[in-house]
Amino acid sequence: MGTLTVAPREESARARWERFNPIVTGDDYVESLRGRDVTVYLFGEAIADPVDHPIIRPSINALKATYDLATEDPDLATAWSPLVEQRVNRFLHIVGSPDDLVMKNRMQRRLGQLTGTCFQRCAGLDTISVLHSITYDIDQKHGTAYHRRYLDFMAQAQRNNVIIGAGMTDPKGDRSKRPSEQADPDLFMHVTRRTEHGLYVTGAKAHMTGGLNSHWICVMPTMNLTAEDRAYAIVGMVPGDAQGLTYIYGRQSCDTRALEVGDIDKGNARFGGQETLVVFDDVFIPWEHVFMDGEYEFAQDMVARFTAYHRASYVCKTGLGDVMVGAAAAIAEYNGAAAASHVKDKLVEMTHLNETIYSSAIASSHEAKALASGIFMNDAMLANVCKHNVTRFPYEISRLAQDLAGGLMVTLPSQQDFEHAVAGPILQKYFKGRSSVPVEHRARMLRLIENMTLGRNAVGYLTESLHGAGSPQAQRIQILRGMEVERKKGYAKDLAGITDPAASE
Amino acid sequence: MGTLTVAPREESARARWERFNPIVTGDDYVESLRGRDVTVYLFGEAIADPVDHPIIRPSINALKATYDLATEDPDLATAWSPLVEQRVNRFLHIVGSPDDLVMKNRMQRRLGQLTGTCFQRCAGLDTISVLHSITYDIDQKHGTAYHRRYLDFMAQAQRNNVIIGAGMTDPKGDRSKRPSEQADPDLFMHVTRRTEHGLYVTGAKAHMTGGLNSHWICVMPTMNLTAEDRAYAIVGMVPGDAQGLTYIYGRQSCDTRALEVGDIDKGNARFGGQETLVVFDDVFIPWEHVFMDGEYEFAQDMVARFTAYHRASYVCKTGLGDVMVGAAAAIAEYNGAAAASHVKDKLVEMTHLNETIYSSAIASSHEAKALASGIFMNDAMLANVCKHNVTRFPYEISRLAQDLAGGLMVTLPSQQDFEHAVAGPILQKYFKGRSSVPVEHRARMLRLIENMTLGRNAVGYLTESLHGAGSPQAQRIQILRGMEVERKKGYAKDLAGITDPAASE
Amino acid sequence: MGTLTVAPREESARARWERFNPIVTGDDYVESLRGRDVTVYLFGEAIADPVDHPIIRPSINALKATYDLATEDPDLATAWSPLVEQRVNRFLHIVGSPDDLVMKNRMQRRLGQLTGTCFQRCAGLDTISVLHSITYDIDQKHGTAYHRRYLDFMAQAQRNNVIIGAGMTDPKGDRSKRPSEQADPDLFMHVTRRTEHGLYVTGAKAHMTGGLNSHWICVMPTMNLTAEDRAYAIVGMVPGDAQGLTYIYGRQSCDTRALEVGDIDKGNARFGGQETLVVFDDVFIPWEHVFMDGEYEFAQDMVARFTAYHRASYVCKTGLGDVMVGAAAAIAEYNGAAAASHVKDKLVEMTHLNETIYSSAIASSHEAKALASGIFMNDAMLANVCKHNVTRFPYEISRLAQDLAGGLMVTLPSQQDFEHAVAGPILQKYFKGRSSVPVEHRARMLRLIENMTLGRNAVGYLTESLHGAGSPQAQRIQILRGMEVERKKGYAKDLAGITDPAASE
Amino acid sequence: MGTLTVAPREESARARWERFNPIVTGDDYVESLRGRDVTVYLFGEAIADPVDHPIIRPSINALKATYDLATEDPDLATAWSPLVEQRVNRFLHIVGSPDDLVMKNRMQRRLGQLTGTCFQRCAGLDTISVLHSITYDIDQKHGTAYHRRYLDFMAQAQRNNVIIGAGMTDPKGDRSKRPSEQADPDLFMHVTRRTEHGLYVTGAKAHMTGGLNSHWICVMPTMNLTAEDRAYAIVGMVPGDAQGLTYIYGRQSCDTRALEVGDIDKGNARFGGQETLVVFDDVFIPWEHVFMDGEYEFAQDMVARFTAYHRASYVCKTGLGDVMVGAAAAIAEYNGAAAASHVKDKLVEMTHLNETIYSSAIASSHEAKALASGIFMNDAMLANVCKHNVTRFPYEISRLAQDLAGGLMVTLPSQQDFEHAVAGPILQKYFKGRSSVPVEHRARMLRLIENMTLGRNAVGYLTESLHGAGSPQAQRIQILRGMEVERKKGYAKDLAGITDPAASE
Repeated sequence: MGTLTVAPREESARARWERFNPIVTGDDYVESLRGRDVTVYLFGEAIADPVDHPIIRPSINALKATYDLATEDPDLATAWSPLVEQRVNRFLHIVGSPDDLVMKNRMQRRLGQLTGTCFQRCAGLDTISVLHSITYDIDQKHGTAYHRRYLDFMAQAQRNNVIIGAGMTDPKGDRSKRPSEQADPDLFMHVTRRTEHGLYVTGAKAHMTGGLNSHWICVMPTMNLTAEDRAYAIVGMVPGDAQGLTYIYGRQSCDTRALEVGDIDKGNARFGGQETLVVFDDVFIPWEHVFMDGEYEFAQDMVARFTAYHRASYVCKTGLGDVMVGAAAAIAEYNGAAAASHVKDKLVEMTHLNETIYSSAIASSHEAKALASGIFMNDAMLANVCKHNVTRFPYEISRLAQDLAGGLMVTLPSQQDFEHAVAGPILQKYFKGRSSVPVEHRARMLRLIENMTLGRNAVGYLTESLHGAGSPQAQRIQILRGMEVERKKGYAKDLAGITDPAASE
Repeated sequence: MGTLTVAPREESARARWERFNPIVTGDDYVESLRGRDVTVYLFGEAIADPVDHPIIRPSINALKATYDLATEDPDLATAWSPLVEQRVNRFLHIVGSPDDLVMKNRMQRRLGQLTGTCFQRCAGLDTISVLHSITYDIDQKHGTAYHRRYLDFMAQAQRNNVIIGAGMTDPKGDRSKRPSEQADPDLFMHVTRRTEHGLYVTGAKAHMTGGLNSHWICVMPTMNLTAEDRAYAIVGMVPGDAQGLTYIYGRQSCDTRALEVGDIDKGNARFGGQETLVVFDDVFIPWEHVFMDGEYEFAQDMVARFTAYHRASYVCKTGLGDVMVGAAAAIAEYNGAAAASHVKDKLVEMTHLNETIYSSAIASSHEAKALASGIFMNDAMLANVCKHNVTRFPYEISRLAQDLAGGLMVTLPSQQDFEHAVAGPILQKYFKGRSSVPVEHRARMLRLIENMTLGRNAVGYLTESLHGAGSPQAQRIQILRGMEVERKKGYAKDLAGITDPAASE
Repeated sequence: MGTLTVAPREESARARWERFNPIVTGDDYVESLRGRDVTVYLFGEAIADPVDHPIIRPSINALKATYDLATEDPDLATAWSPLVEQRVNRFLHIVGSPDDLVMKNRMQRRLGQLTGTCFQRCAGLDTISVLHSITYDIDQKHGTAYHRRYLDFMAQAQRNNVIIGAGMTDPKGDRSKRPSEQADPDLFMHVTRRTEHGLYVTGAKAHMTGGLNSHWICVMPTMNLTAEDRAYAIVGMVPGDAQGLTYIYGRQSCDTRALEVGDIDKGNARFGGQETLVVFDDVFIPWEHVFMDGEYEFAQDMVARFTAYHRASYVCKTGLGDVMVGAAAAIAEYNGAAAASHVKDKLVEMTHLNETIYSSAIASSHEAKALASGIFMNDAMLANVCKHNVTRFPYEISRLAQDLAGGLMVTLPSQQDFEHAVAGPILQKYFKGRSSVPVEHRARMLRLIENMTLGRNAVGYLTESLHGAGSPQAQRIQILRGMEVERKKGYAKDLAGITDPAASE
Repeated sequence: MGTLTVAPREESARARWERFNPIVTGDDYVESLRGRDVTVYLFGEAIADPVDHPIIRPSINALKATYDLATEDPDLATAWSPLVEQRVNRFLHIVGSPDDLVMKNRMQRRLGQLTGTCFQRCAGLDTISVLHSITYDIDQKHGTAYHRRYLDFMAQAQRNNVIIGAGMTDPKGDRSKRPSEQADPDLFMHVTRRTEHGLYVTGAKAHMTGGLNSHWICVMPTMNLTAEDRAYAIVGMVPGDAQGLTYIYGRQSCDTRALEVGDIDKGNARFGGQETLVVFDDVFIPWEHVFMDGEYEFAQDMVARFTAYHRASYVCKTGLGDVMVGAAAAIAEYNGAAAASHVKDKLVEMTHLNETIYSSAIASSHEAKALASGIFMNDAMLANVCKHNVTRFPYEISRLAQDLAGGLMVTLPSQQDFEHAVAGPILQKYFKGRSSVPVEHRARMLRLIENMTLGRNAVGYLTESLHGAGSPQAQRIQILRGMEVERKKGYAKDLAGITDPAASE
């Protein structure tokens, strides 16, 4: 149980919460990120005020949209929480029914439409969901009190309306070795020591979506664990400005366009995603915020349940897909090609693929089943099917959008050239298409499509669609496990007239 | 309005129902088809007793399975009907909720697993659903009493537990002409005259699935109609043995294997589909069984709603897909190849595609919305997406199953050769694979895959998947109509920073 | 070296050739098959005269077409043979240049167009090609005289204008065991004894395309062999009517339509494929016709070279693809839909896929390289790529053809119904489409598409495309072996600026 | 015929050539671009010395590679020119045989492997090829002397070893209007006046690949023209530094990474593409360099022939595909995943798709036919098929490469962070994978894949693959025109037994 000396740095759970004020509006949220003492590296510099950094701000704006939507469309983006007996942001809501999951999916699609990027809050939401049942199940087996701690934490989180981020993916080091076998033990997050008031963790969480934009980070195992990996079986909540945290910002295609003057070439000037490496150097977690400590045998279930929720959350990409359909239709119109049958056919194909993804997601939610703790979980097979389609269809939708955009998308000069005294009028003259459409509109729409298929938000629309919530092969493994092939062999044998018992083994 | 003389052939609605006895078991159903005075042509002969014809019987067996399932699994295949206050076969149930539609889908998948073919009862079920709202809507506008007639009919149908088939597809003649413009007016079904007791129709219904196996045929328009086509705006119920009906049986790939001795080469000896041309030569319908007569403006809605229901009904193909997955897995095992990674990968791909179809179907049902009459209708976009995937994925699933089957599937000698005194032992010797697997089992499984990918049930699994409930282009047109492209353009413009009102028109 | 007693059944090479007369015309070919003392089983009966059997004859017609084409288009279907100093059928020509291979491909496509089926002669041709270099290489290593024997045999074959079939695929038994490890040694063909005049083989060759229609069968190993498998390393020529041979005919989808009256429902009444199991029970081969005997280490090369030739021979399927494009275009026209943009688009897609196959095949031939014996061999990578596309694209072409055909393809009544006194006129009335198109033409075109996508010739167009010359995974293994990944890693490292020697190993 | 006064600016053909010195090495080429008086805008600034601009230089390097390869591998990258009786760079060689075209393809693939980008010289080469036959054909009809002028120009070009760029794509304005109907006549390039010594053109050429890096620009029509468009039927050679030219540089994804310190994040630091808008404001062309002037009826053929050559030139993308395969294999190895069966399978799929493209290209070249002028032209159908596959397969190859790369590709911090005193060691610690692989190598390989799938060279590998040499629909139109559907209908009718003459019209 470690030493019992209490270091001054062992900030209590209460003290941690007391630093928060309830957030109401999106602007409140932005303010809540100011003045935090966080260490952030970006382009080789420590960033003093991330909130106003032009590269970082669009990612904050995307999270801000999750607050704004709660104000503008409360039916969609808030829900009644029995826990605190008030309406709460749906990203903090404990899903109590299949309908809650469906409403979550609708909200996710809507936010995709509004931001055209990854709004970074789904992994946290799905973590909340998983912890409900996992803490309950651990308590049932081990007589622990994690579930109560969890509910207390959630009540505070709902009242303060904070953002909880998911710190899941360890760096993993040599993939052929287990956590406890790595040359460097820190390649998976682990408990370094325990005190009277809590425990300390060291390690890192890679690809942490919106890491810097979260108020709390939930650290948790990234894979199944064995008895030898017991020290790695840790789940806990850490405030984003905890002592010992370092953020190193991941770069994205075209990220520095955010530093340029003018908003056209940015494509989507307001919104962007964020991926960070979050490094934990002996970070303290008070016991009240520890939800697993050594119960390694629950790691596998935790990951499996997380993916059941999270793979359906990729329904957000259908919101981005809606933007792609709209952008492709708009640019075809600007180019004067909207009436061509092949253009309409491509829009139909984009829509068909996009709605196929949607259908798999909401089917998975509608078909959710209750777990022992009373929470509902997505149908795992359909969630995997959803995510697997997400690893394919956005690429084809993107290709079709580029097809309708035309080659100008990648040969268009810069906004500065458009605004230059000599070059500008030349560009206005030669890039005129249909007379009713301003050249600038054409440029803006092309830059949006570039943004989503090659640029900053292509990261979210394409590559993250491939790897987020597990790479394609991860889904195939789950589909293999869940496909009940023996039952299906039985159907075939029955129809083929194969009844010999010798063959049925 | 025709003459008012009552011909003796004008059988009353009551008389028509009196010829029925309530059906309880599958065997009752088979018996109910005996002794009917129907005219059926097959291979150039009038068939005296279709029930015992070896080509026809497997199609009757498939419908029998819908009765048997009601007995074996009443939760799945029956439902409580408020109309008659008793449980009724789900194929006769008026869908009162999204859950009813989801349960329908589950039953359809189950029957696909059990029969490996088209069980021919979905179009009738979806017709029942459509008529509920359409008769209601016509009454609302025209003050007619169709809805009451419909409910009376349905009460009788539920009590007698009969099969209602859908007579929808007119031969259509020259596709560039409307019904009233055709050289031969009979190329679309139309009212020829009206009497005090009812009306007469002439025409034909093509590709009628399970036509001969139905107790009642609902005739209805196949496309939108104009005022000139008023005579073609007819919906009515006709008993399958009505005077003036002629059935001409459609042939299928490998149909005559049903005439061969032995059950191996049939692949699926028990179950098959049925498509018939049903010709109506001045067939009488009493007023009680007329649900539309001239209200041409409702034809378009009727077709659109029918497709919303029916395109999701193609979820049945996921039951066949389950058989394909099972058959492919079994033959791979028989071939000794089950452990190869590419084999597992192909089974995963088959499952992924199959479950994608399933997800679109049940999503469409879960997302059903209530119509004015109180009935629920599938989400039209998702139903179209489901069917559109059905026009693609079974072909790929079939290709993968053939891949795992190996070439022997199309080079295997006949069952008679296997049973021949000289040839048989040679075949036993040389077609031995894994020692634990009888050669006959290998042959049976190969024949099942042949049956579903090239043979009799390939008709249902492939070609009907393409064209049933509308060919692929029909879904694309619906997706185009429903894709709300202006709304999506708005998302794109908003993100691209295009606010000029001139461009937003 | 076995016993030296000479059994009377040890027919000499000379005696075997003396039974042949030079074949000139297609009719000569058909005659040459009559009166042979062969044992053939089909549907449990020994067939006395295969030539006139209605199921077998279409397969003979397809081979006859290879003779007829030589007469009608000698530039395409014959070539000058330096061996016999006369023009010979191109199917017997030893390919002496890349151009010879290209001309072969053109001839194969042409025969596909003319027959719409597998004309069964390519495996034999590709065997001829392989043996040229393999016999040469064995002689170089072992000082044997196989190459001379081969050239003598080929001179006779060319002068007599015979058909040589390829007996390659052994039944294989338990796939996890090598030939010498099988419980039954006959599951791979092997030498049972040797005499002064020759040797005896026992075993079987499965899926032998056109087995019964060949004058000579070349038996050869189906896979790489080890020293333990020495007895299985046998290549030799056996006349099709040799003592000890038994043919068991493989059945195909819709094969028995050939037994029906009328030619419409057959789809393609004249042409079909043939797959047989050929059983060798102690069959004698004189030394003059033995081209490998124990040199097991050449088996792997032999198979690899065979596939390099043979996988490009699947260019024949582009001829069938041309028929599919034509049939789809014709039925769309008959249906009155030829002008629809989606119809044209589907024809373009079918053509694009078909020509992609063609390009891979002829690229492989144009890029052929000379082997030590002086013969040219297809580029192996491109031949594998060709065949791999053949395992995919015909299925999609077939799906698109079914799309354009419409559902009537699988619901059309039989020809007998069309000819029935009562049913016939009804069908004529209701299946009338565009007035200028006879209903019979529509029926015929639908039956052709059925024939090629579900029926008898779907076996050749689809399943054989998948498995002939190796199943898909076999090509993937060859592509893996040939893809030179280290060279390509070098390109990537060079561009990425990775120069550290430690990383380049 | 315009006025006859000679302005001093009318530089003679001789004077233009006298400004060149024969280029031998790649370094000579780079030097040849220095000190030219050209007007170039980039990011709103006129660039004084483009050669040393960090964004522009990689595009010059790519062209330099075409010179370097000629030195390093003269068999591949040079050819004997009968015109000047010496070996010349293959990019200036007049293709005299199918083999010349095949060698061109091999060189293109090689340069793709070496540069990983668009080396910008193919459109010019294909223009050279087209002009040979078009000038010849015009002369034949009109008695002009264009062909002699063309040969004289080419002799000078070959002796001086210059780069000729293709100025083809006009801005086009309103797509629904012809050149002569546009509101602004300059939206298509046209002749403004003619003098004794030459003519003047005004207009612009968009998407001009490597425009700024060329010594000469060949202006030519972009589409078929009518008699009214006579002034637009102009082909001529203009030196890249001619009076009246303005270049406006197109921006590309991640272009400004070239301005950053360090070479890692650039992905491919040395090579990049270039697309420019080239504006012609009353630019003079002496008669000796005019190859078409008003013969509008040849515009269509010129475009068709250009696309036949140029669509096969997209074989270059297989060189980039080789880099993708190598990069994916390398990163899988660095990640410790190289042995996984799904990894190998994805590399095989990437290779299969890449080689399919290659096969279509070289098949098109091998099948080239001679034109009247004696030059050989690619088979048009196969060239279109090649390009159409290029519009699809690189996207899938790119997706698979991203799959194997893993999510780190889009979350990796900047090189500056890796080099930061605090952040750097943290990153080294946590991004360690297999112990034998330096973290930097992993980073470099990920950045290369990012470069080719999202970054600067994704423009060339993806979007240019879609739109260069014509967007996908352009190929579909050509395939439609060339698919000879009537001939194929004939095959189908013949096999279906349709002989009635009434149906064959």
